[in-house]
Amino acid sequence: MNAHEFRRRGKEMVDYVADYLEGVEGRQVYPDVEPGYLRPLLPTAAPQEPETFEDIIKDVEKIIMPGAASPACTELETVMMDWLGKMLRLPAVFLAGEAGEGGGVIQGSASEATLVALLAARTKVTRCLQAASPGLTQATIMEKLVAYASDQAHSSVERAGLIGGVKLKAIPSDGKFAMRASALQEALERDKAEGLIPFFVVATLGTTSCCSFDNLLEVGPICREEDVWLHVDAAYAGSAFICPEFRHLLNGVEYADSFNFNPHKWLLVNFDCSAMWVKKRTDLTGAFKLDPVYLKHSHQDSGLITDYRHWQLPLGRRFRSLKMWFVFRMYGVKGLQAYIRKHVQLSHEFEALVHQDPRFEICAEVTLGLVCFRLKGSNKLNEALLERINSAKKIHLVPCHLRDQFVLRFAICSRTVESAHVQLAWEHIRGLATDLLGAQKEEKAGKPCWGGQISSTI
Amino acid sequence: MNAHEFRRRGKEMVDYVADYLEGVEGRQVYPDVEPGYLRPLLPTAAPQEPETFEDIIKDVEKIIMPGAASPACTELETVMMDWLGKMLRLPAVFLAGEAGEGGGVIQGSASEATLVALLAARTKVTRCLQAASPGLTQATIMEKLVAYASDQAHSSVERAGLIGGVKLKAIPSDGKFAMRASALQEALERDKAEGLIPFFVVATLGTTSCCSFDNLLEVGPICREEDVWLHVDAAYAGSAFICPEFRHLLNGVEYADSFNFNPHKWLLVNFDCSAMWVKKRTDLTGAFKLDPVYLKHSHQDSGLITDYRHWQLPLGRRFRSLKMWFVFRMYGVKGLQAYIRKHVQLSHEFEALVHQDPRFEICAEVTLGLVCFRLKGSNKLNEALLERINSAKKIHLVPCHLRDQFVLRFAICSRTVESAHVQLAWEHIRGLATDLLGAQKEEKAGKPCWGGQISSTI
Repeated sequence: MNAHEFRRRGKEMVDYVADYLEGVEGRQVYPDVEPGYLRPLLPTAAPQEPETFEDIIKDVEKIIMPGAASPACTELETVMMDWLGKMLRLPAVFLAGEAGEGGGVIQGSASEATLVALLAARTKVTRCLQAASPGLTQATIMEKLVAYASDQAHSSVERAGLIGGVKLKAIPSDGKFAMRASALQEALERDKAEGLIPFFVVATLGTTSCCSFDNLLEVGPICREEDVWLHVDAAYAGSAFICPEFRHLLNGVEYADSFNFNPHKWLLVNFDCSAMWVKKRTDLTGAFKLDPVYLKHSHQDSGLITDYRHWQLPLGRRFRSLKMWFVFRMYGVKGLQAYIRKHVQLSHEFEALVHQDPRFEICAEVTLGLVCFRLKGSNKLNEALLERINSAKKIHLVPCHLRDQFVLRFAICSRTVESAHVQLAWEHIRGLATDLLGAQKEEKAGKPCWGGQISSTI
Repeated sequence: MNAHEFRRRGKEMVDYVADYLEGVEGRQVYPDVEPGYLRPLLPTAAPQEPETFEDIIKDVEKIIMPGAASPACTELETVMMDWLGKMLRLPAVFLAGEAGEGGGVIQGSASEATLVALLAARTKVTRCLQAASPGLTQATIMEKLVAYASDQAHSSVERAGLIGGVKLKAIPSDGKFAMRASALQEALERDKAEGLIPFFVVATLGTTSCCSFDNLLEVGPICREEDVWLHVDAAYAGSAFICPEFRHLLNGVEYADSFNFNPHKWLLVNFDCSAMWVKKRTDLTGAFKLDPVYLKHSHQDSGLITDYRHWQLPLGRRFRSLKMWFVFRMYGVKGLQAYIRKHVQLSHEFEALVHQDPRFEICAEVTLGLVCFRLKGSNKLNEALLERINSAKKIHLVPCHLRDQFVLRFAICSRTVESAHVQLAWEHIRGLATDLLGAQKEEKAGKPCWGGQISSTI
């Protein structure tokens, strides 16, 4: 949607809201629809080609408004999560469908998804052990529980362990910053020998630091063998899996118990919208379910409806699936794929530019939209370069450490980014690098820096 | 703002967004401002009188845009939470001010606030005990930790205990559904005698079921005496404390370590916006702080800035304080007070109508906008009445249990509610009650119901 259409449609929406408020007394306070009313009204998958705003807004009045906020909010979410799961070719076991045991839910952030998964896994293993040995207290069990993630995993994983009150161990990643079978198996064996209880593994697809991928096809079978909950965190990279040429990066997800990525990161859905699927929704609802009278309703035990309050930490919910519905239909799957492909192509363009300049090096394989690079030389040199780049305020880079190297990260992530922006950014970086290296050379040579004053070389 | 102005201002906002997007390349990617830039640009308290939309939108360009999303998002939140705290006359120790140790944060829901408080308290007591006895493991401690809340507390409190992996005990409330000193003290003594460790009490101001108030002035000193974290949950009732005549309901908050209420419930701020304050922000940040390189920034250790990511469960944040800023200024404190007062007055109007009909009874003291009532008679009768009310779909009531009574709840909560709506709703309820009682009478008399068929009286 260009700015011209945005102005027109935005104003129509303002009128829609005002009309709604002016006419609200004429509407029924409670919908007439029955649970499950919405799914038959929608296609079973997202459209391949873009649809018009006109068509979508017509459907709001026809499909959403009769279901008001409830149950439309819940039912649209379930269907949208199925649409998105199908876009990713997620195994069918993760979808709700009409009678599936799995399903998707929108969380606020990948941090919450990881925490929810960890808490569900904790409850599951605790109940299982208590069923086998009724004398065991929760605390005795929790003391022995161990969760695992690669040393490249996001800090939110460590935080989930902290909140959940369980040990979280970092598995050393390999030369490509990936968690592999051998390191994980070694940790599991060592811990089991010490009487600890491995119960939860987070595998990351597309790490924050360098967009590396844990080896799911190795890690998955180990988790299944050891009966350990596998949570797959693809917060950033997940959006790319809608493209067939990147889907192989998700292979092995069939071993996972839960999977999460953030459409708000790279799939044009506004913040916040973190998509989480589980194979067995009873694993989540079992961990969180409490039913006071003021939250009871007539369809409670029918099995027909989804009570998302049992799937998440907060009780209240926003109607975030509307964002997905609009975006999926306005872009179509092909439009979203084109968006992802353009970003990946631009990051390779930037990678090629870096390769052409012998002063720089690429620090990790470029798979999606992130390029990790640095000046050949010390960390101090690269810290100085970052300082110059961010002080100039033309572009903004966020660094990371890869092992002991300080690394700059060039991330393609704007909705409107073009090749010209990438070229300009690189010229800007190169220019600042030239200035920096020149200044350093002068400093080393003990040359007067300005006005005859001698700079210190200490 | 009436519908006419909403249409005009809404369309101006659409143009503002479109202009922003069209001109975004001309803007700097990183702001020039220094930490703390925003506070001096704003008044120290919310305005008493309403301001115009024009004035507020001018300030967006002048005050917010130079600070972009960051740090403006954080700094406006801190200042708005101070404004709101002052509206409630919250003790100064809860405010951030310029050098305070406390401060406020926007959470997504009261459930999250309770959980965050419980986790902070858990960390604090664990560290404290481990400092005294370094041999103690976290699990050994957690096994003994006990949290307390009234038997009228919201289900999210029990859920927080479940997630935090600690025991949660329900304190029997008194005849007015309030937690009192004696019952709490008794539970604490009993548990301490058994070697357990009381560490956390949730006091509720305005319970979900009947808007009862725990006795803070009794509970507070006990918590202080026992060195137990006191969290005050005023999710619904909190908004009323901006009116001097209701402020006494908050007396005793000075004993609390954390306090929370939901402006999205009753203060005209759109969902979600749950306001939480703590006396010592290091209690929160101590529980959640993790600092990976990709989240480091140059002001990290300066003590000048607030890193809200350490105050909450998710990592990412939305710019929710903008909603508060707009609402506080467009209504002014007086406008917000008038809004609360109108709702309370309408609930008393409904209460009076119920009193006038001898078939009905009021089931709990009416303090704010909630009226608990029922037909004199069995629970079954009242369940049948609720069924008739909600099936008619003209109004919608949510019931509760008070002890063994099934009770209907009439909640004044719409922005546009007027006396006429209350009158209509009551006439509607009375009519349905008359129908119901009539039908029952006929049934009992064994009168033919239709076509000569004899109804069963079993």
